[in-house]
Amino acid sequence: MPVSSGIGRRRFLAGAAGLAGLGVGAGVTAGGAAALRPAPTECTFGSETVDFHGDHQAGVTTTPPAHVTYVGVDLVPGANASVLGGILGIWTDDAARLTQGRPSLSDAEPELARLPARLTVTVGIGERVFTVADKEKLRPTWLRPLPAFGIDKLDPKWGQTDLLVAICSDDPMTVAHTVRVMVNAVRTRIRVRWVQRGFRESRGAQADGATMRNLMGQVDGTVQPDSSLHDSLIWDDGSAQPWFAGGTSLVLRRIAMDLDGWAELDRRGRELTVGRRLSDGAPLSGTSERDDPDFTAIKNGLPVIPASAHVARARRTGDRDRFLRRAYNYDDPPNGAAISDSGLLFAAFQRDIDAQFVPVQRRLAEHDALNEWTVPIGSAVYAILPGVREGEVLGSALHERP
Amino acid sequence: MPVSSGIGRRRFLAGAAGLAGLGVGAGVTAGGAAALRPAPTECTFGSETVDFHGDHQAGVTTTPPAHVTYVGVDLVPGANASVLGGILGIWTDDAARLTQGRPSLSDAEPELARLPARLTVTVGIGERVFTVADKEKLRPTWLRPLPAFGIDKLDPKWGQTDLLVAICSDDPMTVAHTVRVMVNAVRTRIRVRWVQRGFRESRGAQADGATMRNLMGQVDGTVQPDSSLHDSLIWDDGSAQPWFAGGTSLVLRRIAMDLDGWAELDRRGRELTVGRRLSDGAPLSGTSERDDPDFTAIKNGLPVIPASAHVARARRTGDRDRFLRRAYNYDDPPNGAAISDSGLLFAAFQRDIDAQFVPVQRRLAEHDALNEWTVPIGSAVYAILPGVREGEVLGSALHERP
Repeated sequence: MPVSSGIGRRRFLAGAAGLAGLGVGAGVTAGGAAALRPAPTECTFGSETVDFHGDHQAGVTTTPPAHVTYVGVDLVPGANASVLGGILGIWTDDAARLTQGRPSLSDAEPELARLPARLTVTVGIGERVFTVADKEKLRPTWLRPLPAFGIDKLDPKWGQTDLLVAICSDDPMTVAHTVRVMVNAVRTRIRVRWVQRGFRESRGAQADGATMRNLMGQVDGTVQPDSSLHDSLIWDDGSAQPWFAGGTSLVLRRIAMDLDGWAELDRRGRELTVGRRLSDGAPLSGTSERDDPDFTAIKNGLPVIPASAHVARARRTGDRDRFLRRAYNYDDPPNGAAISDSGLLFAAFQRDIDAQFVPVQRRLAEHDALNEWTVPIGSAVYAILPGVREGEVLGSALHERP
Repeated sequence: MPVSSGIGRRRFLAGAAGLAGLGVGAGVTAGGAAALRPAPTECTFGSETVDFHGDHQAGVTTTPPAHVTYVGVDLVPGANASVLGGILGIWTDDAARLTQGRPSLSDAEPELARLPARLTVTVGIGERVFTVADKEKLRPTWLRPLPAFGIDKLDPKWGQTDLLVAICSDDPMTVAHTVRVMVNAVRTRIRVRWVQRGFRESRGAQADGATMRNLMGQVDGTVQPDSSLHDSLIWDDGSAQPWFAGGTSLVLRRIAMDLDGWAELDRRGRELTVGRRLSDGAPLSGTSERDDPDFTAIKNGLPVIPASAHVARARRTGDRDRFLRRAYNYDDPPNGAAISDSGLLFAAFQRDIDAQFVPVQRRLAEHDALNEWTVPIGSAVYAILPGVREGEVLGSALHERP
């Protein structure tokens, strides 16, 4: 899913225009009056697109834009493979158009499709869909409810749904429009169960590639599988279910943060809880964010990173127990006497939930100093369908006649 | 409230670094390997600040950033001028720090204060506060409930509160952090009644200065009072209430959009409803967005802009019936069978609500073709306090002993 090749040039022109508008750099422009005008933004990234077609759906290993909306929907009673096929056919077509900055066929607000800003649309299906479509034999074995974890306080409000659409863009207008178009186009066949909106630092607010922070103030998501491992750790190779080659799995957990309690902890306590410095995310044993944590480091007779620290509990113990994290913050209006309702929309992508996600989550559930201030309140599991070529429909093995 | 002078240089450096990273422009960098790296964002605007101190509060005539959160809070029972003074003292100090990229005194997450991204904090007070503070004589005459309009279907959920904080930034993380800090700091003295989150196109998604679009797809907010009129139309001059010189008023209306109904209207019908082209916001009588609408233009014997069109009904009839509009879109999770809960957080700033806002709103309530698809569901009115100099506290006339 490379960013489309047309972008480099557009970005160059946008960048050059930006500098010219600023009138800075003697060799770039003559300056003068232009320098006195209010400074324009140096970039216009609205036209940037991410390819829709390919072996894999976009929105998994592609760079996370600033905004996400996850929409969880259920099929209407009586739905079957044909209804599913109708939905996936429309969604495939909508996504192919909207991600490239073109309105959908039924787009009521075509002007709102003109700034994709790295829009991606990612479609996942829940366990029940295999029953509805009468395709039980095609279900990946890991697509089933997660085991119960002692730390969970799950609210069914944020629970498993039949289908998931994840919509990401650097522009919240584009996200809102895309959600509206895609849900509207299939509204007689589905029912919206929940909508979860998340965000990170805005595109352009800081240097590109900086790791996000969560609302507890922590640098969040430093350790990720190298792209050379995506084929072994993330993408299914079709060995168990040939139709699923190029797909992956998503565990979406809504994790509430107790910011009131967290505020009572001093900085040292916070850093020992996570195992990383708050200032820059460096492991307590190191000096910069990307340093490997040294869990054997001792200072004054004590481990520099406590064994109970989040990074110590989350670290992999073998080659398999790791996954791609793609978290976003949420901050919804509070209820009752609370002053905030904040947390993390934690998304984990992996080839095999049982082999990769569950062992890590078990360790964290057993013991993780961070558990004191975080509570999983929502959880759902989806098969992220393989990518499609032009003319193909997502998940066709599930809805086309054999 | 000029953008601080340090920004030009920071932006220049950021812009230059962006171009260097792209490896484009023979005279800028040698190119080579750098050109092959993923394209970085050309701009980093996170460090941009808007002055807090001045004759007026920021967040009124300053450029609207991409995100807003309005927080409406009530004073706890038994509150008095002293309690009010405590709140305003803390908020003044918090805002002075946070808007300049510095943590508040009680900041639990100081790292989240480092990217103000044009953060502004704007404080308003509702009518009841003058009673609570025993300062009835200081109340501006226009600070009272709006007259009832026939189009309103007001939900008390979004109604009048004692205090308002409007927090704007180009970064949603910064907005979330600022809301949390400012509410938390006064939590024993207030109760949060509502939180309303809004957005526009992201900073940098399109050319700077482009007028926003709303979720009906319309270019929204083209006609605004020229800055030369701000002193006469927006800022109070203290002639009626000397303490209020430099203040203004805010009418905040939550306007729900019937996007389902709107979708049934064809493009021509939509354009006649508003009086502007959907493609670029040009009046139907003109060719570009900034053209003055010509309400006398006739084509084929019919008015080019119908007398019922929104722009025809909203146009000023004299020198006074106009105000500064500063709208944001909202898009909240839908309830029940609805597929979206979308609309506009419509903010109108003017010196005198009775003389400026009410006449226009009356005309629109009487007749406006757009009313068919828009419903005001929330309404509140605030006195936006005058600005302060360093060391002063917002609204001191209301809480300091005479």
